[in-house]
Amino acid sequence: MKVYLTTLMHFSAAHRLSNPAFTEKQNYAVFGSCSNPSGHGHNYKLLVTVVGEPDPVTGMVIDLHKLKNLISTSLVNLVDHKHLNVDVEFLNNINPTAENLVIAFWKILKKELKDLLHEITLYETDKQWVTYRGR
Amino acid sequence: MKVYLTTLMHFSAAHRLSNPAFTEKQNYAVFGSCSNPSGHGHNYKLLVTVVGEPDPVTGMVIDLHKLKNLISTSLVNLVDHKHLNVDVEFLNNINPTAENLVIAFWKILKKELKDLLHEITLYETDKQWVTYRGR
Amino acid sequence: MKVYLTTLMHFSAAHRLSNPAFTEKQNYAVFGSCSNPSGHGHNYKLLVTVVGEPDPVTGMVIDLHKLKNLISTSLVNLVDHKHLNVDVEFLNNINPTAENLVIAFWKILKKELKDLLHEITLYETDKQWVTYRGR
Amino acid sequence: MKVYLTTLMHFSAAHRLSNPAFTEKQNYAVFGSCSNPSGHGHNYKLLVTVVGEPDPVTGMVIDLHKLKNLISTSLVNLVDHKHLNVDVEFLNNINPTAENLVIAFWKILKKELKDLLHEITLYETDKQWVTYRGR
Amino acid sequence: MKVYLTTLMHFSAAHRLSNPAFTEKQNYAVFGSCSNPSGHGHNYKLLVTVVGEPDPVTGMVIDLHKLKNLISTSLVNLVDHKHLNVDVEFLNNINPTAENLVIAFWKILKKELKDLLHEITLYETDKQWVTYRGR
Amino acid sequence: MKVYLTTLMHFSAAHRLSNPAFTEKQNYAVFGSCSNPSGHGHNYKLLVTVVGEPDPVTGMVIDLHKLKNLISTSLVNLVDHKHLNVDVEFLNNINPTAENLVIAFWKILKKELKDLLHEITLYETDKQWVTYRGR
Repeated sequence: MKVYLTTLMHFSAAHRLSNPAFTEKQNYAVFGSCSNPSGHGHNYKLLVTVVGEPDPVTGMVIDLHKLKNLISTSLVNLVDHKHLNVDVEFLNNINPTAENLVIAFWKILKKELKDLLHEITLYETDKQWVTYRGR
Repeated sequence: MKVYLTTLMHFSAAHRLSNPAFTEKQNYAVFGSCSNPSGHGHNYKLLVTVVGEPDPVTGMVIDLHKLKNLISTSLVNLVDHKHLNVDVEFLNNINPTAENLVIAFWKILKKELKDLLHEITLYETDKQWVTYRGR
Repeated sequence: MKVYLTTLMHFSAAHRLSNPAFTEKQNYAVFGSCSNPSGHGHNYKLLVTVVGEPDPVTGMVIDLHKLKNLISTSLVNLVDHKHLNVDVEFLNNINPTAENLVIAFWKILKKELKDLLHEITLYETDKQWVTYRGR
Repeated sequence: MKVYLTTLMHFSAAHRLSNPAFTEKQNYAVFGSCSNPSGHGHNYKLLVTVVGEPDPVTGMVIDLHKLKNLISTSLVNLVDHKHLNVDVEFLNNINPTAENLVIAFWKILKKELKDLLHEITLYETDKQWVTYRGR
Repeated sequence: MKVYLTTLMHFSAAHRLSNPAFTEKQNYAVFGSCSNPSGHGHNYKLLVTVVGEPDPVTGMVIDLHKLKNLISTSLVNLVDHKHLNVDVEFLNNINPTAENLVIAFWKILKKELKDLLHEITLYETDKQWVTYRGR
Repeated sequence: MKVYLTTLMHFSAAHRLSNPAFTEKQNYAVFGSCSNPSGHGHNYKLLVTVVGEPDPVTGMVIDLHKLKNLISTSLVNLVDHKHLNVDVEFLNNINPTAENLVIAFWKILKKELKDLLHEITLYETDKQWVTYRGR
């Protein structure tokens, strides 16, 4: 009797797409305006889905406030109002494409949520997003 | 050649989260402001997904108007503009968390839609929702 | 050089529409299912618009965090996860239609924001909302 | 390490639902106002989901601009600002229900995207949509 | 003590932009793909704003169900699931741009709502809309 | 017979709020995490409203494609995928609060649209936005 519970959280961050092995010209050819050296930014939306049977005592898969606190403390507070290429230790040496971000975010949330974690989705804009389930 | 068809419906309802075996203090500790005795409320959104091959004569998995009528008659009309702890017979003795609601709603829709029913999702707010597939 | 700054906030509450001078039958005739005695509820959205010249030192009409704190403390915390007919002192003897709510909310915010306050809008659902400017 | 990348695109089109083997009366009985002979229309939303491992050099499953161009050229440009029953060759003799459209769209995108293509979803309105995964 | 009450309604319709005095070439030059002879379509959204003092007996500017019924009967039912150039008598000889539609809609609603009517807004898509106040 | 036509456009940009006359400590006290030196970013939404009588020949206040091109060329292309504190000449020495941005944007659009321009609104996030009418 598995119920999937999803919570939506927001953060605003700057990033720049590039490969340090590339020249600026190559970066522009591959990443376009996303490789602008001073960066640009997004209002990211993060959907975290946990899965489990509702506890018969509480009727809940997990306490939603605890879930949100845990996601804030372990992840969202580290990236909100930050430059993802500069300010975030766990993203060192990672080109912050949505794909790479969602995998890095999964690793952090997996440590916290273990088997509860089912899927995470990261919206870069309302027109493009990525989903990851850990494999 | 399975196509998944989803329809979105709305209802507005009051509810209160609590466990009758708890003291008020315990209820507040577990459910926070959701355990306020007079209740609070939500604009719920319900997504019902059916699955099947499109009928070669009509090009439809199911007649959408019939589907919506069926969901209204069997479910939405029973909960819309109601207090879920007080007014709804099929929720008697059920703590109306989103998790418990989605399971109770599934049982009703399953009787009506049988193998057509694939998945239902219940939004309590635009920031938290639950999904259930019957197992 | 007036700039209008709007902030969106949420609260979830129960309410019941009725006139105590009416019989239940009359209440149902006038308010329909909104007069269900045990109440129903909504995810309300509140838009507060302030107006002013941006401060030349900060570039801001008002510090947005202070504005949000002020709206939370003076208003939103008093209605969030509450039953508007039962739990809210400043709504005593007020039939909580969206129209009456937006006027009552204006009075509270006007005391706090004075000439900064320009307009407030209250969404009962995504399909119906009211706007008030204090006159 | 599969990441699912989704992009949202729009098109506006007219259509009419009917079965040429039916009389007008039968068409109205089955398709209701959707069988109005002069047609009606929608702002369709199309979600295309591709799946793959992020390229270690670029951090991307696929170049998003190339993906969008490919979807535009092979599909969206053929249906945008068109009457789906009249103007679109690949829809000849297809009753343009959302179900039939999503299958026809899949065939086109599958040729272009091959194993990258995971799922497409077509919104006819914000209240009804269909999803197809090619089987 | 004026409160502005807005209700949102939907309709789906086909239309074609053209000037009958133009050649097809001129029509294409002026209206682009919107002049495609077989038409295209939209999910229109209509916002109707009425203004007034809340009735002291009901707390309402107007009974919302009556307002919605009135808008449906006098206007929305005449355009929903229709081709605006072909099926709608009150749009005869009117080029159905959003601008012309909003003026024609105002005339109909003004007859019904008189001084209550404050403003109407017509969304052609989520990216473009028009507003009219009768002068 | 004035009709107000609004078009919605998007851009993604990085920015940092600060006053160069302030110490870092003062900047943090006033601007909080928005003063993070490496910046953060947003998906901005820009609403541009023009006003006029529909042309009797075309039924349009302005050709929407021309309007969008003009806004792109004169404004959106200069800020999209840019760092607003670093990359944008017309924002030199301007602290890029939403309030200051909307005034700077107005000046640019006013030169292009003259009396057609009625109002612009800039969304920094879906929860906060500013509106300006040039005075």
